[in-house]
Amino acid sequence: MRPATGSGFSAAERAAVYRAIGSRRDVRADFIGDTVPDDVLERVLAAANLAPSVGLSQPWRFIVVRDLASRRRVRAAFEAANASAAAAYTGEELERYARLTLQGILEAPVNICVVCDDDPQRGHGLGRQTMPETARYSTVCAIQNLWLAARVEGLGVGWVSIIDPRELRAIFAIPERLTIVAYLCVGYVRGFADEPDLLRAGWETVLPLSEVVDHERYTER
Amino acid sequence: MRPATGSGFSAAERAAVYRAIGSRRDVRADFIGDTVPDDVLERVLAAANLAPSVGLSQPWRFIVVRDLASRRRVRAAFEAANASAAAAYTGEELERYARLTLQGILEAPVNICVVCDDDPQRGHGLGRQTMPETARYSTVCAIQNLWLAARVEGLGVGWVSIIDPRELRAIFAIPERLTIVAYLCVGYVRGFADEPDLLRAGWETVLPLSEVVDHERYTER
Repeated sequence: MRPATGSGFSAAERAAVYRAIGSRRDVRADFIGDTVPDDVLERVLAAANLAPSVGLSQPWRFIVVRDLASRRRVRAAFEAANASAAAAYTGEELERYARLTLQGILEAPVNICVVCDDDPQRGHGLGRQTMPETARYSTVCAIQNLWLAARVEGLGVGWVSIIDPRELRAIFAIPERLTIVAYLCVGYVRGFADEPDLLRAGWETVLPLSEVVDHERYTER
Repeated sequence: MRPATGSGFSAAERAAVYRAIGSRRDVRADFIGDTVPDDVLERVLAAANLAPSVGLSQPWRFIVVRDLASRRRVRAAFEAANASAAAAYTGEELERYARLTLQGILEAPVNICVVCDDDPQRGHGLGRQTMPETARYSTVCAIQNLWLAARVEGLGVGWVSIIDPRELRAIFAIPERLTIVAYLCVGYVRGFADEPDLLRAGWETVLPLSEVVDHERYTER
């Protein structure tokens, strides 16, 4: 790599950042169940809180869940949603679906429910008049920061979207004015796979960069 | 920091990742206008393409814009939206708003319009039955990857949300079925400020971590 003048990052430091990005995985199995120390979890959450946010609104809130009874309720909500989801598939696709591990709610010692205030007072409305959805996007940027920080701490993160958000709202007493963005399973793992689970399982292939980049205008493929 | 067993990252490498996260800025001024070499831009876009995506759907598309005529049209769209936005403020707040630099569309040599297929065929619907918005969220994760990779390359990124997305759709021939997620200004910068612009400008303060983390259930503050 050529030197990145003025970045303040050495070649080795830049390589570390690219490696974190490239070796981050959506982890659903392989949690080893070890406790996540408070200081480690705090570093990872602090990384989330450093994300960009529209108007500097920081519209996110992270609910850290260790309580087993709560996680059992979430797990039951997953089972219900997953049974409905599976009903959309048939034949070979259903068999492949049934073999996928899609959550680690009880196996990961820490779960994090991420919520967002879509209409925050903070930020004084800056940047949200034409694109109000940017508050939500800020919260997702925070999740990606968390995910990368977790990776370098040796913590796997799995984002579970097969849950009816209304169930999470009830379990964690989340007011109606807040949007439930994500439910994450977090914990130490045996290791990080070289490739995404869904690629290894034959569920989907990987689109190369050339297929997702256009120049000057959108090109239909 | 204690060693992160099994992460495969040394303390120095972990520190580099945290430093990228902490020193990333939303850059609107300070672009120096130098060309961004193709290989550098490709590394940054490849980092985006490595983001997590629901069902491994990779629903994102990046339109790289260097053409000055297009950027002038986008700049005009910003000016129109910004005039409306400014009308929402009065008095001291309006004065502060008017002093903010909110875009670098012409100053940054590269702009990137990021769009998303909210209902991708790829991924076979996995994870999108209960939370279909996760396709959009995948695209935002990709943007945050891009932003961090840009940081270590010495490239500033500014996310401009004060534009009517319909104008971007017309300028870049984006079909109706795709959602316009972000418009980014990208280029080498004189440097990265120690603090967010909006903090330095007195627009907003920073919420400490303790204010955005709850335990076990949501807590009204």
